Amino acid sequence: MRATILQAPYEIRFTEVPDPEITAPTDAIVKVTAACICGSDLWNYRGENDVKPGMTIGHECLGEVVAVGADVRDFTIGDHVIVPFCHCDNTCANCRAGVQSACVNYGVTVTGQGEYAKVNQADGTLVRLPGAPDAATIPALLTLTDVMATGWHAAVAAGVTPGSTAVIVGDGAVGLCAVLAASVMGAERVVAMSRHESRQRIATSFGATHIVAERGDEGIQAIKELTAGIGADAVLECVGTAQSMQTAFHAARAGSTVGFVGVPHGVELPVRRMFGKNIGLAGGVAPVRRYLPELLQLVQEGRIDPGPVFDLTLPMDRVAEGYAAMDERRAIKVALTPVA
Amino acid sequence: MRATILQAPYEIRFTEVPDPEITAPTDAIVKVTAACICGSDLWNYRGENDVKPGMTIGHECLGEVVAVGADVRDFTIGDHVIVPFCHCDNTCANCRAGVQSACVNYGVTVTGQGEYAKVNQADGTLVRLPGAPDAATIPALLTLTDVMATGWHAAVAAGVTPGSTAVIVGDGAVGLCAVLAASVMGAERVVAMSRHESRQRIATSFGATHIVAERGDEGIQAIKELTAGIGADAVLECVGTAQSMQTAFHAARAGSTVGFVGVPHGVELPVRRMFGKNIGLAGGVAPVRRYLPELLQLVQEGRIDPGPVFDLTLPMDRVAEGYAAMDERRAIKVALTPVA
Repeated sequence: MRATILQAPYEIRFTEVPDPEITAPTDAIVKVTAACICGSDLWNYRGENDVKPGMTIGHECLGEVVAVGADVRDFTIGDHVIVPFCHCDNTCANCRAGVQSACVNYGVTVTGQGEYAKVNQADGTLVRLPGAPDAATIPALLTLTDVMATGWHAAVAAGVTPGSTAVIVGDGAVGLCAVLAASVMGAERVVAMSRHESRQRIATSFGATHIVAERGDEGIQAIKELTAGIGADAVLECVGTAQSMQTAFHAARAGSTVGFVGVPHGVELPVRRMFGKNIGLAGGVAPVRRYLPELLQLVQEGRIDPGPVFDLTLPMDRVAEGYAAMDERRAIKVALTPVA
Repeated sequence: MRATILQAPYEIRFTEVPDPEITAPTDAIVKVTAACICGSDLWNYRGENDVKPGMTIGHECLGEVVAVGADVRDFTIGDHVIVPFCHCDNTCANCRAGVQSACVNYGVTVTGQGEYAKVNQADGTLVRLPGAPDAATIPALLTLTDVMATGWHAAVAAGVTPGSTAVIVGDGAVGLCAVLAASVMGAERVVAMSRHESRQRIATSFGATHIVAERGDEGIQAIKELTAGIGADAVLECVGTAQSMQTAFHAARAGSTVGFVGVPHGVELPVRRMFGKNIGLAGGVAPVRRYLPELLQLVQEGRIDPGPVFDLTLPMDRVAEGYAAMDERRAIKVALTPVA
């Protein structure tokens, strides 16, 4: 089959790779019917993580089941499914505690930007769709595989409550989904920190009540002014850099929690400030499967539509253009369609 | 008056200092009727913090009100009171959010190991006792000014729930109080990490169901064995060193929270592990005033008696002996009685 591989930093290709195969009786193989590029793929693309030359890449996709292992009971060939980026048995102690992203049988999608993808622990991982999704719903459904669930996790981890003031640090797809999550959870003031007009517009359409365009100390100052000097009740950190984390901890009120979902890179946590102000930190890799039933229902009922985070759609064999567009921030998030 | 001062590391004296005075209309002065030495005083004693030569020291005491400012309404001369180590107005936004230790009018007791102490924000800070406490109750009441409330805060921050497994890192007075807190909150398994037999005995009498004497990797391994490899539901970090924090994060299950109350010294938080395993961190300087009514009731009803953390009592003019005993771990916690 063909799939996307990363040969070296900034060298991305759609090319022949070995077909994925059922190797465990709990595996399934799905034909990828819709895929996309994740902001976290850029860490690899830019060489900020160690990259094994020729590694496949891509962990967000919808698919149609084309093969199942002998122990898969709940899915069969022909089922249309959402594939959460992290795979789980959904029965182990960690899954039962709501941390499917730390399942003892954890796996991840690794050829999501390809023609086929293998799913570990198919029964625990997959969520069935009523049928082949219509084109209008595909963008929203695609976000459920990662970014919408991740933004939701930030809001859950930060403890957003009705009537609260929530600040979202980061205006990538996850940050925008976090705005949507905080809004749906009833935050009275949803403050999006964003300096890009196109992203500000989406944030507003997702429920942001305030936009703070300033960064660093000025951004923190703006939050303090909005909150009578006290700070925000909940801060959702959706970037993962040293600067974004610092902004998050300075925007947070004493006794609050920073919910973090941006993969941390070069971050040193301000432990003395956290201690002195009782500002907690919670979050991490989103347990997507935990939230999927609820989020799918919200999409199906039309109560959320995170689809607008996609502002560019390309056929999969032009994936390199998609990475370049996201890397250069010309696109927020790129959807990929299968090629014949 | 006389009070305890720290002249230089390891040089502690009970000597003449200026009397505390009412300088704000919300102040009160209490005559110290019982005092004690805190484990956190040792950071100063040992020179691990910057010490201003001649600084007074001591933040845990009971007292009798001897003077009040013009705006103090709820207390009057002759009242016997508990003085939480951190002072608060108990009305500001942070206090209302339960973080009295980050009150916008924050203050601390600074001559608690002296004859008199000044209390900022007396109405918000003090808690009245029915009268002069009897000798048998004084130790328990003294712990409420800091260590019992701090151990309680660790348990609250870590989210101890009925039926859970709680691990307490640290067997100082705070750690032992944290054992008591976890037990009272209904944890099914309360695991005290302690290698000192006398402390193990107190831990057991406070409700510890398991003792782990090993430290470092072996201690972590012991916790893993107790929890089927999954880790503890709640970890209460009551030390504040790099090693204790590392133990805490490795003993904690995915998705759990480390509740930390040991003042961090030289700690670098394991942000990648926290992210990968969704292990949160919460806690900090305990909002003592928040917990005081509940804890006082538990003491008065005989449901908790944290008094046994005191294993040495000295008259205040022999305070130096008390510091040496705690520094050398010959004593867990030292009570100080007033001198004529």
